[in-house]
Amino acid sequence: MTSPTLPFPLLQALVGDEEMAALFSNEAELAAMLRTEVALAEAEAEIGLIEDEAAYRISEACRAFQPDWNGLAKGLAHDGVIVPEFVKQLRAAVGEPHARSVHLGASSQDITDTGLILRLKDATALLFQRIEELTRVLLDLKERDGSARLMAHTRMQQALPFTAAHKIDTWLQPLERHEEVLRELAPRLLVIQLGGPIGTRGELKDHGDAVADALAERLDLGFAPSWHSQRDRIGEFASWLSLLTGTLGKIGQDIALMAQNEVGEVRLATVGGSSAMPHKSNPVPAEVLVTLGRFNAGLLGTLHQALVHENERSGAAWTLEWLVLPQMVVAAGAGLSKAHALLQGLTFQSSVLR
Amino acid sequence: MTSPTLPFPLLQALVGDEEMAALFSNEAELAAMLRTEVALAEAEAEIGLIEDEAAYRISEACRAFQPDWNGLAKGLAHDGVIVPEFVKQLRAAVGEPHARSVHLGASSQDITDTGLILRLKDATALLFQRIEELTRVLLDLKERDGSARLMAHTRMQQALPFTAAHKIDTWLQPLERHEEVLRELAPRLLVIQLGGPIGTRGELKDHGDAVADALAERLDLGFAPSWHSQRDRIGEFASWLSLLTGTLGKIGQDIALMAQNEVGEVRLATVGGSSAMPHKSNPVPAEVLVTLGRFNAGLLGTLHQALVHENERSGAAWTLEWLVLPQMVVAAGAGLSKAHALLQGLTFQSSVLR
Amino acid sequence: MTSPTLPFPLLQALVGDEEMAALFSNEAELAAMLRTEVALAEAEAEIGLIEDEAAYRISEACRAFQPDWNGLAKGLAHDGVIVPEFVKQLRAAVGEPHARSVHLGASSQDITDTGLILRLKDATALLFQRIEELTRVLLDLKERDGSARLMAHTRMQQALPFTAAHKIDTWLQPLERHEEVLRELAPRLLVIQLGGPIGTRGELKDHGDAVADALAERLDLGFAPSWHSQRDRIGEFASWLSLLTGTLGKIGQDIALMAQNEVGEVRLATVGGSSAMPHKSNPVPAEVLVTLGRFNAGLLGTLHQALVHENERSGAAWTLEWLVLPQMVVAAGAGLSKAHALLQGLTFQSSVLR
Amino acid sequence: MTSPTLPFPLLQALVGDEEMAALFSNEAELAAMLRTEVALAEAEAEIGLIEDEAAYRISEACRAFQPDWNGLAKGLAHDGVIVPEFVKQLRAAVGEPHARSVHLGASSQDITDTGLILRLKDATALLFQRIEELTRVLLDLKERDGSARLMAHTRMQQALPFTAAHKIDTWLQPLERHEEVLRELAPRLLVIQLGGPIGTRGELKDHGDAVADALAERLDLGFAPSWHSQRDRIGEFASWLSLLTGTLGKIGQDIALMAQNEVGEVRLATVGGSSAMPHKSNPVPAEVLVTLGRFNAGLLGTLHQALVHENERSGAAWTLEWLVLPQMVVAAGAGLSKAHALLQGLTFQSSVLR
Repeated sequence: MTSPTLPFPLLQALVGDEEMAALFSNEAELAAMLRTEVALAEAEAEIGLIEDEAAYRISEACRAFQPDWNGLAKGLAHDGVIVPEFVKQLRAAVGEPHARSVHLGASSQDITDTGLILRLKDATALLFQRIEELTRVLLDLKERDGSARLMAHTRMQQALPFTAAHKIDTWLQPLERHEEVLRELAPRLLVIQLGGPIGTRGELKDHGDAVADALAERLDLGFAPSWHSQRDRIGEFASWLSLLTGTLGKIGQDIALMAQNEVGEVRLATVGGSSAMPHKSNPVPAEVLVTLGRFNAGLLGTLHQALVHENERSGAAWTLEWLVLPQMVVAAGAGLSKAHALLQGLTFQSSVLR
Repeated sequence: MTSPTLPFPLLQALVGDEEMAALFSNEAELAAMLRTEVALAEAEAEIGLIEDEAAYRISEACRAFQPDWNGLAKGLAHDGVIVPEFVKQLRAAVGEPHARSVHLGASSQDITDTGLILRLKDATALLFQRIEELTRVLLDLKERDGSARLMAHTRMQQALPFTAAHKIDTWLQPLERHEEVLRELAPRLLVIQLGGPIGTRGELKDHGDAVADALAERLDLGFAPSWHSQRDRIGEFASWLSLLTGTLGKIGQDIALMAQNEVGEVRLATVGGSSAMPHKSNPVPAEVLVTLGRFNAGLLGTLHQALVHENERSGAAWTLEWLVLPQMVVAAGAGLSKAHALLQGLTFQSSVLR
Repeated sequence: MTSPTLPFPLLQALVGDEEMAALFSNEAELAAMLRTEVALAEAEAEIGLIEDEAAYRISEACRAFQPDWNGLAKGLAHDGVIVPEFVKQLRAAVGEPHARSVHLGASSQDITDTGLILRLKDATALLFQRIEELTRVLLDLKERDGSARLMAHTRMQQALPFTAAHKIDTWLQPLERHEEVLRELAPRLLVIQLGGPIGTRGELKDHGDAVADALAERLDLGFAPSWHSQRDRIGEFASWLSLLTGTLGKIGQDIALMAQNEVGEVRLATVGGSSAMPHKSNPVPAEVLVTLGRFNAGLLGTLHQALVHENERSGAAWTLEWLVLPQMVVAAGAGLSKAHALLQGLTFQSSVLR
Repeated sequence: MTSPTLPFPLLQALVGDEEMAALFSNEAELAAMLRTEVALAEAEAEIGLIEDEAAYRISEACRAFQPDWNGLAKGLAHDGVIVPEFVKQLRAAVGEPHARSVHLGASSQDITDTGLILRLKDATALLFQRIEELTRVLLDLKERDGSARLMAHTRMQQALPFTAAHKIDTWLQPLERHEEVLRELAPRLLVIQLGGPIGTRGELKDHGDAVADALAERLDLGFAPSWHSQRDRIGEFASWLSLLTGTLGKIGQDIALMAQNEVGEVRLATVGGSSAMPHKSNPVPAEVLVTLGRFNAGLLGTLHQALVHENERSGAAWTLEWLVLPQMVVAAGAGLSKAHALLQGLTFQSSVLR
C-alpha cells in the first residue's frame, strides 16, 4: 500500500485524544519509570544508603537507556508486571560496580505506581487547563448569545421560555465544581508510592521515611506512607473523571436535542455527513460526548471493583486498573477537546418570540 | 401463622441497615417533604411573598398532615413524581384561603431534591459517626494485637513477615481519607434545591435568591443556585459511598483470606454455621463486606449513567437515581456496622515465629 | 394516621411490578424451600434412603409449617444463609423420630438454589405471557396506525419518511428473538440444584443421581449435575433480562422523542402532570422504560461479577446475586407491563405529507 | 534506540491476544468493508440493479484499493462513521462510468455492521476452536491428576475432601454450556445488515430482499431484515463473552487459591517473579483470568447501555459499542489462551490423606 497504516485504531480519530494518550504510551511509561529510579537513587545517595557515584552512574545510564522492548513485553507477560525485567535491563546498563544500587529497597509497585502518578500529574495539569479554556468558550458564548430566547424542556416536553444564558449557566456551574474538586483531590492523588516489597519500607531500615521524603521532593510529588494496597486515591480520581465526562455528556445530549430539525435552537459549525443522505447535518461531536459520558460511567463501575485489593498486593485487581484507568483519562481529555470544538462552533437561535 | 411476616425482605437481616434504611422509608420521605414545604412557606412569608398567617397555617397543617398513601402511590405512578398529588393533598389540608400559598413558586424537583438532601444530611452524620467508631475499634485492635507476627502476602503468595500493626494501618489510612473527603464534599452536597419549574426561580420574581437564602437558613443547608439538572453533587457522593464500601470490602477480603484454616492468622467471634457441615466456621460478615463493595461499585457505574440528564429535567435519569442511590447509602451503612462487629470480635494470631 | 402506610416503598408504584415482586417475597421464598424439602424427602423415600412414613410426616409438617420469622432473620444474619435455621425449625416441626430424615444429604445451596429456580420458572412463564401480550398490542397498533407517515431520524436528525409500520417492526422483531432465546435458555436454567455440602452428592452414597432424578421429576424441573459453583445459568438469564429491558428502553426512548411537542408523531393516553406547569403532558411511562433499561444494564454488569465464584461455594459472590437478580426480574416484569399500558394508549400521528 | 518500540501497548503482552486483536485492526476493518462492497455490487448485478461490468470493475478496484488512511481518519472524525469518506475514496478508485454503482442503496451502517459481523464470524470460529482445545487440556488433566485428593472449600473454609476430578468437572461443565449457547446464538448473530439509510431497503425499490438474499449468500452469512437499530444481537454475543470470561475467572480464582503456599494443592509451570523477592512464584496467569472476568463483566454492563438505541440510528449508542465490543472479544480470546497455558502447566497435588 502506498500510504502507511495509522499507528492507532482509526476509532481514536473520533473518540481519542492524542495529547492525553501520549501520557500512556510505552515510551511515556518507560520515561516515568526511569525518572523514578533516578530520583530514588539520588534520594538514597542523599540519605547515605548508596554512594553518590552510584546515583550519578544510575542517572547517567537512565538518560542513555535503550530498552529491549521485546524483552520488556516478555517480562511483563511472565511476571505480571514490567519492573523485574526493566530493573534487570537497567542494572545491565548501569554495569558494575553500581548495578546493585539500582532499585534498592523498592518494589515493582513503587516504580509502577509512582511512574503512573507522575503521568497523572501531567494529566491533571492538562485537565485544569482545558476546563479553563472550555469555561472561557462558554462565557464568550453566553456573552454573545445569552439573550437568545429558548424553550426550556422538562421530561422531554416544552416547559416555559428562558434564555440561552440560563442554559449555559447549567453547563458552567458543574465545571466550576469539577475544578474545585480536582484541586481538593490533587494533593491526595499526586503523591509518591514507596513501600518496598510489602509496603513497610522495611528494606530501607530506619531510613524509609527519609528516602520517601527526599524522593517526593525530587519528583515534586507529595509525601505519603505506602498506599499500594489502598486504591482509593485511584478510585477517587476515576470518579472525578466520570463526573466530568458525565457533565460533558449532558451538554452533548442537550445540544443534540436542541439541534433537532424540529427544534432548531442551535446551529453547529461541525456536522457530519451521511453516505446515503446528502442533506443530513449530524451533530457528531455532541453524540460523542454522550458516548464518552456513558463509557466512563461504566468504566468507573468496573474500576471500583479493583478497590477490593486483597492482601499486600493483588495482581488481579491491579491489572484491572491498568486496563481501565488510562481509557478513562483519555476519554476525559477527548471529551474536553470535543466539547471545546463543538461549543466554539455553536450558535444559539431564538425559538421563542419575546 | 403464629408469627407475623417480617416487614422487609429477610435478606436485609444479612446485608441491610435498619437505621440507614429508615431514612428512605415512605414516612421519612414524606416528613422531609413536609419540612421543606413548611420552611419554604416561612421563607416566603419572611420575604413577603405570602402572608404570615398563610405560613402559620401551612406549618400547622403539615404538623397534622395525614397522607392518603394510596393516593400518593397512584399520583407517583401517574406523574412520575410524588409531588403533584402531595401538593394537592396538602392544599386540601391547609384549606382556604391559604391553599394557594402552599408550594408557591416551587417545582416537584425542589421538594423532592431538597427532601432528599435533608435525609442525606442525616446519613452523612451517621457515616461520620460510624467511621469514627470503626477507627476506634481498629486503634484498640492495633494496641492489643499489633505485635502479632503475620505473613504479608502479595499476588496470593507469601511475601515477607510483618506485624498486625502494619496490616491494620493499611485499613486505617483510607478511612482517614474517607473522612477527609466527606468533610470536603459535604458543603457541596448539603445544599437546598430551589429553582421552580425550569430552574430559574422565575416564579419568585426578583425574590428568588432571597427566598432561597431564607430557605437554606431554615433547613440548615447551604445555599446554591438551582442545580436540579446538574447531578454531579449526587454522583460525587455516590462515588464516596463506593470508595468507602470498597475499602471495607478490602478489609473483608483480607480477613476471609487470613481466616482460612490453612492460614489461621485471625480468629473470629462471629462465624456462621452450615446446614450440612457442623464443623464449619464461616467468616460470613467478612464475605458480606466483599459483597457490599462489589455491589456499590456496580451501582456507582449505573448511577453515573444518570449524569447525562437531558435538558431542564430528565424523568428517565432522575428515576434511575431513585432506584440506585438509597441502596448505595444503605450498603455503606451496613458495611460500616458489619465491619464494626467483625473487627470487634477479631483476634490476630501470630503465624510467623520471631 | 387514618390511612395506613404502604407495605412497600412508594417508588414501586412507579417502577415496580407486584406480580413479579411477589415471587421474591419472604413467603414465596419460604414456600419454595418447603416445596423443595418435601420433594427431596419423597425422592429419597422412593429411592429407599428414608422411610415412606418419614416422607409422609415431612410433607405433612411442611404443609402446616409456621416459621419463626425473627428466628429465620437471625439465622440468616448469623449463617449467611437461611437454611441452617430453617432446617432446625423444620426438624422441630417434624418431630421425632423423623426429624433426622429432613434435608438428608442436602446442603443450604441445594434448597436455596432449587427454591430460586422454582420461582424463576414462574417468572419465565409470566415473561413469556407478557411478551406475547405486548406483541399482540404492537400487531394491533400496526394494523390500526401502520400507514401513518412518519419521519425517520438518524443521529438525532430527520432522515427520510417512512411509516409507523416500519417503526413498529423494529420494536416487534427483537421481541420475537427474546422469546426464541428464552425458549432456548429455559431448559438450561430450569433445573434442580442438588449437590450436598460440596457438590458431589457424596452424602447420598451411590444414590445421588437417582435422588436428583426423582427430585427433578417431582418439581417438574430438568435434571442437572450439581452446578452450585457454576453461575453461568444465572448469568445467562440475567443477560436475557437486560436484553429485554434494553429493547423496551429503546421503545420508550423512541416514544419520548416522538412525543416531543415539536415532533408530535405520537399521542399518549397516559401522561403525567406537573406540580408547577398545568399544561405539561409528560411521557412518564416512556421515560420509565428508559430508566429500567439502564438500570438492568448496570445490574447485569454487577451480577456478572458474581461469576467469579471461588471454590465450592462463595458466600461473597452468592450474596451479590441475591441483591441483584430479583431486582432485575422485577424490572423486566415492570418494563413489560409499563410498555403494554403505554403502547395500548398510543396513537401515531402522521407528520409527513404523502 | 537500537530496538524499535512495540507497535502496541506493552500491556497487551499480559492481557492481550494478537490473533483476536488482528480482527479489529484498521486493515481488517477495511478488508471487511471492501468485501462487503464487492458482495453488494455482485448481488446487485445479479438482481439487475447495476451492470455486470460495474460489479466486475468494483471488485477489481476493491482488490487493488489503497486507502488514504489519514483521509479515512479525518472522515471518521467528521462524519462519526468511516463510510462516507471510504465510499468517496472507493468511488474515485473505481472511476467512471461505474463510480455511482458503488454502495448503491446502502448506508454507512450496512457496511460497518456487515463488516463487523464478518469479523465476528472469524472470532466465533476461533472461540469454538479454543474452547475445544481447552476442554481437551482439562480432560487430559482429569485423566492424569483426577485422583488427587483435595480439600473442598466453601465460604473460604475447609469443607470436606474430594478429588481433582470433581474440581475439574466444575470447570468443564460450564464450558460445555458455553459451546452450546454459542451454537445457538451464532445464527442470530452471523447475519447481514442491509437496510439503506433508514432500514427499509427502500432505495432498492422492490428488490431489497432479493439483494439482501444474494448478499447473504455471497458472504456466507444469514439473511435478516434490517436490524441496525436493534442491538440485541450484539448485546447477546457480548453477554456470552462475559459468561465465558466469568467461567475462566472462576477457574483462575480457584487456582490462585489452591496455589497459596499454605494450601499447596496445585503446582504451576508458569509463575512470575518479583523485583524485590526472589523466592516468589506468583500465579500470574491465574490472576489475569480473574482480571479479564471482572473487566468483561463491567464492559458488559456498559455495552448493554447501548441497547437504548434511539430512533433509526443512534450515533451515541453505536459509538459506545465500538469502544466496548472489540475489547470484550479480545479479552475472551486472551482468557482462553491464558487458561490453556495455565492449565497445561498445572499439576494437582494431594493435600488430603486417603
